Amino acid sequence: MQSLINGQPTNLISIADRGFQYGDGCFETVRVAGAHPVLLEAHLNRLENSCQQLGIPLPLTTLMQEIEQLLLSNNWPHAVLKITITRGVGGRGYRPDPHGQSNRIVQLFAYSTAESPADGNGIEPGVSVMLCQHRLSSNRALAGMKHLNRLDQVLASREIPEQFAEGLCMDQAGYLVEGCKSNLVLLRGDKLITPDLSESGVNGIMLQYLLNRFREDGLTVESARVSFEELNDIGEAFLCNSVFGVWPVIKLSGNATVFSWPVGSKTQQAIHYKNEIFNAAR
Amino acid sequence: MQSLINGQPTNLISIADRGFQYGDGCFETVRVAGAHPVLLEAHLNRLENSCQQLGIPLPLTTLMQEIEQLLLSNNWPHAVLKITITRGVGGRGYRPDPHGQSNRIVQLFAYSTAESPADGNGIEPGVSVMLCQHRLSSNRALAGMKHLNRLDQVLASREIPEQFAEGLCMDQAGYLVEGCKSNLVLLRGDKLITPDLSESGVNGIMLQYLLNRFREDGLTVESARVSFEELNDIGEAFLCNSVFGVWPVIKLSGNATVFSWPVGSKTQQAIHYKNEIFNAAR
Repeated sequence: MQSLINGQPTNLISIADRGFQYGDGCFETVRVAGAHPVLLEAHLNRLENSCQQLGIPLPLTTLMQEIEQLLLSNNWPHAVLKITITRGVGGRGYRPDPHGQSNRIVQLFAYSTAESPADGNGIEPGVSVMLCQHRLSSNRALAGMKHLNRLDQVLASREIPEQFAEGLCMDQAGYLVEGCKSNLVLLRGDKLITPDLSESGVNGIMLQYLLNRFREDGLTVESARVSFEELNDIGEAFLCNSVFGVWPVIKLSGNATVFSWPVGSKTQQAIHYKNEIFNAAR
Repeated sequence: MQSLINGQPTNLISIADRGFQYGDGCFETVRVAGAHPVLLEAHLNRLENSCQQLGIPLPLTTLMQEIEQLLLSNNWPHAVLKITITRGVGGRGYRPDPHGQSNRIVQLFAYSTAESPADGNGIEPGVSVMLCQHRLSSNRALAGMKHLNRLDQVLASREIPEQFAEGLCMDQAGYLVEGCKSNLVLLRGDKLITPDLSESGVNGIMLQYLLNRFREDGLTVESARVSFEELNDIGEAFLCNSVFGVWPVIKLSGNATVFSWPVGSKTQQAIHYKNEIFNAAR
């Protein structure tokens, strides 16, 4: 792992940083393919929006220079870039200094395409996933944002045994939201359905990219509240995130039920859209 | 601020620490009075329970030695001791290494009794508080715990202007939960009421100490869902936490309403209970 903190090569930060004390910040995880950060503009847009919602200043031009500096100095063809913005160093107490300076942390991780059980360039073989018992927090003011309060994802992912590639999480009311580290897309009839993200979950960059591509191609895409039982009516399912791209879900286990789905035409289309941006970058 | 990380005097931690990456940990804030950590045993019990719930190993004996080391080497009569346990250093990804080693961070902050607007030893003059717009996350699995995911408290406390000592927060359904940094206790008829903490909020050590004392003295103490409007029926209100102890609430502003309460006999009793442990330590 290589890292810059406010432009300086170090991996040490003060325990007085509010990111450490309170998870007071937000982050982005960006796939680097062909030494190029995929969908970087969309990631930086979301980061800007998150910082604005949290009231954290973001010196975007400086940050972009630091990202370029880290990418150029390593020049890894495949990598994962993590960008974290915190509210910076503060004293004891939740209330932030309104004139505080944020901290910028840029990290580069080695990435092997072998990390992903379904990360080829053709028709991915698909993954088995499970339903987690841990339920995500509900909070309209934080939903959608990729903030640093990630205990839900940590606790849910602790439940996943080796044989499952991912776990699906429900919200407090028992509706499906997303995977621990990915968004869920379902085919119901001739419509794509993605669980409602207005109270829980992360509004993924890869999710939005794929849904926009589907919409441009004339498909109806809807956000809905979906219960586990309603998965009976689903024809295809896939997971997506910015690092692995698209994983077809061929098996889902939970509540003493096992759903099986084919790697159908919409999932293949999603893989195609994903390949366009992952390969264009190569 | 003085600090030890795993027993070593430093204030720098790796950005790979999962506390920094995900808020993956928990903490305690302990008042030091007369160089003695007040209610330390109760704090360590809660910390043990939180670590157990999160699945984070806690080497309690070592931690207690480090706390003693930090207190003795500084010997400040008044201070605030903060104890943080994180899941330790990890790679990229939410899923923790089941064999990972936790990190122990012990910090000592200077504390002046002048910090508190109502921290005398007699009948405190009381504070004015407001109702925050930001609502706390709902999550049955995390409620009560003092974990490191504190964006709710940060965002709510940003709303509080100088003239208010504290802000009250509601849950997603609109019921009162607690202050940003304190618990709320109300007198309704001849019963003490404290908002239900099973879906949101922190189960405070000072709160539990005071409620136990009231129960021992024969008072009925109940946890209940309380709406802002129901405060009409309240005779007294006070806030409590481990650092400032007890703050009588004499004025509460919110929803175009102002409630005023006297510093009544139950609030005075709470101050008396608090003084017993704060002064015993001197």
